[in-house]
Amino acid sequence: MKIGIVTGIPGVGKTTVLSFADKILTEKGISHKIVNYGDYMLNTALKEGYVKSRDEIRKLQIEKQRELQALAARRIVEDLSLLGDEGIGLIDTHAVIRTPAGYLPGLPRHVIEVLSPKVIFLLEADPKIILERQKRDSSRARTDYSDTAVINEVIQFARYSAMASAVLVGASVKVVVNQEGDPSIAASEIINSLM
Amino acid sequence: MKIGIVTGIPGVGKTTVLSFADKILTEKGISHKIVNYGDYMLNTALKEGYVKSRDEIRKLQIEKQRELQALAARRIVEDLSLLGDEGIGLIDTHAVIRTPAGYLPGLPRHVIEVLSPKVIFLLEADPKIILERQKRDSSRARTDYSDTAVINEVIQFARYSAMASAVLVGASVKVVVNQEGDPSIAASEIINSLM
Amino acid sequence: MKIGIVTGIPGVGKTTVLSFADKILTEKGISHKIVNYGDYMLNTALKEGYVKSRDEIRKLQIEKQRELQALAARRIVEDLSLLGDEGIGLIDTHAVIRTPAGYLPGLPRHVIEVLSPKVIFLLEADPKIILERQKRDSSRARTDYSDTAVINEVIQFARYSAMASAVLVGASVKVVVNQEGDPSIAASEIINSLM
Repeated sequence: MKIGIVTGIPGVGKTTVLSFADKILTEKGISHKIVNYGDYMLNTALKEGYVKSRDEIRKLQIEKQRELQALAARRIVEDLSLLGDEGIGLIDTHAVIRTPAGYLPGLPRHVIEVLSPKVIFLLEADPKIILERQKRDSSRARTDYSDTAVINEVIQFARYSAMASAVLVGASVKVVVNQEGDPSIAASEIINSLM
Repeated sequence: MKIGIVTGIPGVGKTTVLSFADKILTEKGISHKIVNYGDYMLNTALKEGYVKSRDEIRKLQIEKQRELQALAARRIVEDLSLLGDEGIGLIDTHAVIRTPAGYLPGLPRHVIEVLSPKVIFLLEADPKIILERQKRDSSRARTDYSDTAVINEVIQFARYSAMASAVLVGASVKVVVNQEGDPSIAASEIINSLM
Repeated sequence: MKIGIVTGIPGVGKTTVLSFADKILTEKGISHKIVNYGDYMLNTALKEGYVKSRDEIRKLQIEKQRELQALAARRIVEDLSLLGDEGIGLIDTHAVIRTPAGYLPGLPRHVIEVLSPKVIFLLEADPKIILERQKRDSSRARTDYSDTAVINEVIQFARYSAMASAVLVGASVKVVVNQEGDPSIAASEIINSLM
């Protein structure tokens, strides 16, 4: 079973690209599963009694948050390993999360060593295009990413962070450009890199 | 107790910003301590008989230097833990040190895993402003940082190094611009990120 | 014995610079050895029965490739340690390898922690000069690096990766420019950084 971690800044079109990847893998008859790391964090936290709602996760003590991160990663690997040797697991998450206290690694050591992916994908696009996509997607007002200089800095720190995570486990880091108007290109590039 | 590691290139104004942070925290009545990593290295080295003067530290065998780095980090954590749960510890050090043999990480694995900070701060400013500040500060002639291209490269490598250290322990990395003429802005930003 | 890891993109002139380093070290009467990491990988793989030819290495299971990488690193350290305390070992390898699945770290944790170098050298040159050198060197047609934007991106990811590897072991990272027409300058800079 091969794991690909798909990261990208809000507004780059990650959800759309992953839905295309799902379609392509289904058409190809490849056993696969696409999971969202944040959802696994929440479900694990609720099930294990860490919190009663999503907002409480951020208020947990740092040690508890790290414990939860590692536990969620183990749950993901358990579920994906049911796909068998030829299966493909794609994990939707972030290389860095932009918080008031700075760039928080999305794949710190205690997570990446559990997930041990083959490839960490950095889904990217021109910051101006990302800004336009954000405006079109009224469902998720992203005021904290509404400036091309900010978007550019996030993309740079995501590259540093992804490479540092990759060095810990010997994974590769692949930049995939989500071209305007045809998300299937990026979806195919992700799939081909894992085959 | 929350630890913030404050890094920055010589001339960016780190000492001034930290003195403002000291004043603000005192006015707010917050239990805090600001320590300099280099001083802890020297005091520990002298006390434990590693050296008889600061200059001898650089001539120590690499293994001995690493041992000393880790020991100094433990001493810092011991002292800062006396601040209690609500206390704030700020550590003045460097993300990279520019040496004749290249950029030496200031927070290698055997140090960052002991310090385990909440945030690693990158205190930055426009390279031209840093150059002017260096010229004004005759007390510390910094010929090895006297070129905006060099300053820019140091800032970039400090970002890569800080992110790699952060990935090891799940800390965040925050760029804080030390604006010309009002170091209290940067000082407040550092404090608010740790509260 | 001091280890320097010399990395650089195909076409930057690494082989030439290392042959100059060999000459200079011999003239200086310094006990030294220059090894190629890829050759050690192949010899170890053949000797231990992992493969029957170089091409088979890439087809090995990821765990087997990592096992082989670590074993080759141990063989290198064993051989270089025969140089004695004043000896200099130079390892010719890559900070990142550009593969169809993205940038693969050349010095992942399970390798860098075995090699534990003093310095990781990034041999660099202006991308346009590298492009010209590639064209002159018909022995190695490098179509996959034949674009200055690609060369620039490889240089950037090599910097992130080298710094992340360096943070794990406390090594320094030194950019060495291979100036056009006189590779002995870069060779001397590498040697002086290790003395």
